[in-house]
Amino acid sequence: MNESQLLKHILPTLKQSQDIIVGPGDDCAVIKFGNELLLAAVDQLISDVHYLSSNTYPTCAGAKLLKRNLSDIAAMGGTPFCALVTIAASRNDEKWFIDFFAGIEAEAEKNNISICGGDFASLPEGANVKEITTLTILGKVTREKICLRSNAKPGDLLIATGSFGNSFKSNHHLDFIPRLAESAFIAGNYTTTMIDVSDGLLLDASRMSQASNCGLQLFTESIPLRDGANLNAALYDGEDYELLFAVSPHKFLELEKKWPFKNTKLSKIGVFNTNVLEVSNSNGHIYEIINGYEHSIN
Amino acid sequence: MNESQLLKHILPTLKQSQDIIVGPGDDCAVIKFGNELLLAAVDQLISDVHYLSSNTYPTCAGAKLLKRNLSDIAAMGGTPFCALVTIAASRNDEKWFIDFFAGIEAEAEKNNISICGGDFASLPEGANVKEITTLTILGKVTREKICLRSNAKPGDLLIATGSFGNSFKSNHHLDFIPRLAESAFIAGNYTTTMIDVSDGLLLDASRMSQASNCGLQLFTESIPLRDGANLNAALYDGEDYELLFAVSPHKFLELEKKWPFKNTKLSKIGVFNTNVLEVSNSNGHIYEIINGYEHSIN
Repeated sequence: MNESQLLKHILPTLKQSQDIIVGPGDDCAVIKFGNELLLAAVDQLISDVHYLSSNTYPTCAGAKLLKRNLSDIAAMGGTPFCALVTIAASRNDEKWFIDFFAGIEAEAEKNNISICGGDFASLPEGANVKEITTLTILGKVTREKICLRSNAKPGDLLIATGSFGNSFKSNHHLDFIPRLAESAFIAGNYTTTMIDVSDGLLLDASRMSQASNCGLQLFTESIPLRDGANLNAALYDGEDYELLFAVSPHKFLELEKKWPFKNTKLSKIGVFNTNVLEVSNSNGHIYEIINGYEHSIN
Repeated sequence: MNESQLLKHILPTLKQSQDIIVGPGDDCAVIKFGNELLLAAVDQLISDVHYLSSNTYPTCAGAKLLKRNLSDIAAMGGTPFCALVTIAASRNDEKWFIDFFAGIEAEAEKNNISICGGDFASLPEGANVKEITTLTILGKVTREKICLRSNAKPGDLLIATGSFGNSFKSNHHLDFIPRLAESAFIAGNYTTTMIDVSDGLLLDASRMSQASNCGLQLFTESIPLRDGANLNAALYDGEDYELLFAVSPHKFLELEKKWPFKNTKLSKIGVFNTNVLEVSNSNGHIYEIINGYEHSIN
């Protein structure tokens, strides 16, 4: 299945009502609900795709499922409040499921999230897949804080939290802390253009660039590398769950001074320009955007 | 996996915030959001569990996925407004996915629902399961109309829409129309106790009975049988997607007079009593509640 091609067919067929402020194509959907704005996103975790079932504690897998959804809420400048979980399983291992939910619940409690619903189902007999789990996250956001992918302007800097690459081998894909606190600090105050990096820095940066109808020059030498990563890994690996956001140069000077998160590095890794739909580096090399990791319609 | 046992372990560990009016254990979660009440539920559809992949049109599978969630919103007295869809697949068949989404979208348009987000993922290489799909439905409900499982009182009648049994062979499990219009008519006006029958009439009726802390006498001779069904099939088969609701005898007389849905039969199939947690028939036979089909935490 070529997911990118498939989405090109399917997305235009999905009609959105007036209450859908942001439909498929950002980190979360944004829905007008009464006088408030509701955020909604869903993500999947598949054994032996998103984690190795042989060496991943179920608590870690559960925590990851919630955290990658929290990262989507962070990318919108929002606050999560509840979640629904599904499990389709061939396992007959009650302890695994209890531990999996314990992992979700521990992370939920840290973030004041209620796991308010869900569904269990068994895979067909003889299935050789252990489990497929999904989590739908619901959150809220104010009109002032809402961050889309599409608001970057030529001249804005591209800023990244944390470092990139080698997420799988370093276990960062399990250990990461979703950037909710950082998002709450910057959203609306410094930026209204943000994305989280789940599918690789280059692909996710290019999504901002395309959604904003800007070109983007990457300062590849300034991209912080996670231990064990080279530039290629940083650009393509994915599962970093860091934030990328656009900010004007003078606002960034202020942000650097006031940044209260000592353990979260901020790096200036690019600048948006008027070369429409092109991601290049300082030497003028133009990157080919590889869609291999792309699988999300929000 | 004994899902019933598992839920007994897991559900008490899931802490609910004050904004969760109804957590796991009803057809939908009910969440206070601003001045409104939000409904949320999620359901799964697994190839060769919930439909036979060899002889089910993808449009029908997609429509079923949405409709079974609509049935949950109907059971709460609510109105659906948007949905998020996930697909985990081993198929490499773009036409299947396009048709599957066309099936969802056609049903969504009938009901003014926006498919506002989702996620695609591939199953691990060599997976022998075709696809696992999920849909999260969001809806709204007013405080006056909200229907729980837990409000039945001794003396209330148990009323059912439609007929029961033989849903798979008759294709009712694909063809059914979710009872949203009927629900809008009765919720708040005639009842605040409702459930939809997805896991079998007996099990779902017993859930109302247990949640309401009442006994229930079934008028088994009055249960309408779908073509090809006997009483046993009607009680245990499941996937009927009909509504069961509790109503006082004098309100039921009024309801029968005013019922505007000529094609939806109403049947008086039982009465709640003070024999706590017991489902019996008119001959005094006490039914054993079989949890085999039970798999939902909302």
